[in-house]
Amino acid sequence: MLTDLGIAAAEAKRSLAVATTEDKNRALKAIADALIEHTDDIVAANDIDIKNGEDNGMSKALLDRLKLDADRIEGMAQGVREVISLPDPVGTVLKTFVRPNGLKIDKVSTPLGVIGVIFEARPNVTSDAAALCLKSGNVVILRGGKEAINSNKKIAEIMREAVESTGMNKNVIQLVQDTSRESSTALMQMNEYVDVLIPRGGAGLIQAVVKNSRVPVIETGVGICHIYVHKDADIDMAVDIVDNAKTQRPSVCNAAETLLVHRDNAKAMLAAIKKRLDEKSVEVMADDDSIAMLKEDAETSGDMALIENLEKATEEDWATEYHDYKISVKIVDSIEDAIDHIYKYGSGHSDCIVTNDKMAADKFMDNIDSAAVYHNASTRFTDGGEFGFGAEIGISTQKLHARGPIGLPELQSFKYKIYGEGQVR
Amino acid sequence: MLTDLGIAAAEAKRSLAVATTEDKNRALKAIADALIEHTDDIVAANDIDIKNGEDNGMSKALLDRLKLDADRIEGMAQGVREVISLPDPVGTVLKTFVRPNGLKIDKVSTPLGVIGVIFEARPNVTSDAAALCLKSGNVVILRGGKEAINSNKKIAEIMREAVESTGMNKNVIQLVQDTSRESSTALMQMNEYVDVLIPRGGAGLIQAVVKNSRVPVIETGVGICHIYVHKDADIDMAVDIVDNAKTQRPSVCNAAETLLVHRDNAKAMLAAIKKRLDEKSVEVMADDDSIAMLKEDAETSGDMALIENLEKATEEDWATEYHDYKISVKIVDSIEDAIDHIYKYGSGHSDCIVTNDKMAADKFMDNIDSAAVYHNASTRFTDGGEFGFGAEIGISTQKLHARGPIGLPELQSFKYKIYGEGQVR
Repeated sequence: MLTDLGIAAAEAKRSLAVATTEDKNRALKAIADALIEHTDDIVAANDIDIKNGEDNGMSKALLDRLKLDADRIEGMAQGVREVISLPDPVGTVLKTFVRPNGLKIDKVSTPLGVIGVIFEARPNVTSDAAALCLKSGNVVILRGGKEAINSNKKIAEIMREAVESTGMNKNVIQLVQDTSRESSTALMQMNEYVDVLIPRGGAGLIQAVVKNSRVPVIETGVGICHIYVHKDADIDMAVDIVDNAKTQRPSVCNAAETLLVHRDNAKAMLAAIKKRLDEKSVEVMADDDSIAMLKEDAETSGDMALIENLEKATEEDWATEYHDYKISVKIVDSIEDAIDHIYKYGSGHSDCIVTNDKMAADKFMDNIDSAAVYHNASTRFTDGGEFGFGAEIGISTQKLHARGPIGLPELQSFKYKIYGEGQVR
Repeated sequence: MLTDLGIAAAEAKRSLAVATTEDKNRALKAIADALIEHTDDIVAANDIDIKNGEDNGMSKALLDRLKLDADRIEGMAQGVREVISLPDPVGTVLKTFVRPNGLKIDKVSTPLGVIGVIFEARPNVTSDAAALCLKSGNVVILRGGKEAINSNKKIAEIMREAVESTGMNKNVIQLVQDTSRESSTALMQMNEYVDVLIPRGGAGLIQAVVKNSRVPVIETGVGICHIYVHKDADIDMAVDIVDNAKTQRPSVCNAAETLLVHRDNAKAMLAAIKKRLDEKSVEVMADDDSIAMLKEDAETSGDMALIENLEKATEEDWATEYHDYKISVKIVDSIEDAIDHIYKYGSGHSDCIVTNDKMAADKFMDNIDSAAVYHNASTRFTDGGEFGFGAEIGISTQKLHARGPIGLPELQSFKYKIYGEGQVR
């Protein structure tokens, strides 16, 4: 019964919330060591998942995500070790103030309590999420996809034993063993026991959680990111940024999906960008104006490659996260048009302006309401590691509580400690 | 159609988010002036609600909450004026960091966007919530109870006209005109347009919102607050704090509901507290041990008042927010027992320890997981005004985003502004 996990979590969270940094780091070290020590067991369990996946016709890409070998397990252990080196976010005095009546008030960071993490077929999330939650003083209830259940069970078992070997309550890490749709729904209804749910996965999973959860949710993931190239932008810089944002890792949420180019410099800009994208075989879905410009350019220059891999964009393209070597391109008449387009189609994740005009940059960055707004840098930097947070449990695209990379400090709530000498109202 | 309100809100939020402090204060001043100027109109509209309430057999207490007169409208205007004097929370640079690759990252406060406020029969919430949202750069969609609909419509109309007279989009303040259950449910489903919902009212309303809302919710209000009197506590201080926390205003969420007394000093303490509570005619629901002690005391001293207004507490009492001149009392054997009791029955709002032992105080304050934990002060201080926040839109009892009094800074999200010189990964 899922309720049993909730009750066990409620009990475990009390001691974990006040555990010392040393205790937590000792448990994390035990987890990292145990993962390495039990590499063969994990690989054996993972083999079952891989075989089941193959039998069920799972795609090569998904099988690759699911696969664990000694190297990847070493990577998981290394991830846990990195969390040891991060500062303990619990108990930070965020603010102190003294009231006229003499009351002294400390605002102090505290763990959220119990965090539910719902994820799909990547078994490494099991150790990632567990390590971040443990360090931040939060009990974690993990609910992975059925595709990885054998791997997840084995990893969770190893982590729980490791935690217990250091004298900590093993229920600070729990795995939902039942991977039916019902168990997922039940977890979303457990607001009595679970303080926050973090879904990690595709848009379908995230929307299902947002729609059905009674537990507060931190929404993650969907990124329709834009690069807007202003009229005065440096061409080389724009080409490098678009190339990097689109092609360095197209499958992630901070990759660019749409390029907006100011009309005044569009001809030269488009041709240069298109040439670079061709080197990476990027398919371009373009509006009529872009196509016309590229055609004209191709005819003038004789470089017919400019109009290959080029198709007319539909309304749907502007709202699509391709996750692929594919980009939508549009000419805009002004920075206002660019901002309007991003308001209409963006997902509030990461958007960039390339310009040498500081005022234009400020206007863009003030008006675009996204978790991360960039001036002259690739959107690919929206990442806990790149921000210096050390590790992240996801990228929040909502505005409540956490926005952008969710690191250890974002896994905290706070409380007020009020010191008096008998004050009454 | 509620969707129309959502669309209008989405449009209005863009300009409001970047409005200057001066523009916002001008609009607030116009609202305050207009409320005073239209006092007669508001009273006339309110008269209809009062008459309907009387016809429907509304209780005296509710009719009093609903009632508006010149004094109360002056109070509403004064509330709006006070918000003018509060610092603008938008655009605060919360943190700046520079990465090794030269990227400069500013973490900057930004409005949440569109805030839905669902409330019951207190028409003054209309101007309170509107002023706080406007100052914090948030569009507000107000959805009040049907009992106050005529008052709310008039107040909203006056505020919208006032805002518009200063050149601001009047849709920064909107009122749901339809007070059917359906309109409330529809608002909870509008996660496309509404960024956060704040329910203000009784436990029933709040639970309905938590259960049904797809929009992220900030839960407010329910307070089962405890005073734990440790064995070494100063009797006079304990008596004053219990008296104040229980009786200064019993109808509010930060009033105390349960008194826990350490056994070692319980006899003297209980008698002293009981005498003070008798002066305010507080009914005491006590456990067997407390009753036995008070009886013994009454027999020895001959003061039979000690056992009047005294009844045996049931399991239900420990979990009840009386909102009345009524308190539950229990003897505990240790500070650990007190903490256990609060974990089991508390609502995570405000809890207090009275003690002269600093170590006991620290133990209590570290282990109690409530929005506000007090050492030697009344729980009644959990309040935006008392904390120096100037004003509050409610008291959050959840751990995500906001906890305790929700002032202007809590009505903010944040974004990262990243300044580069062409950096790519």
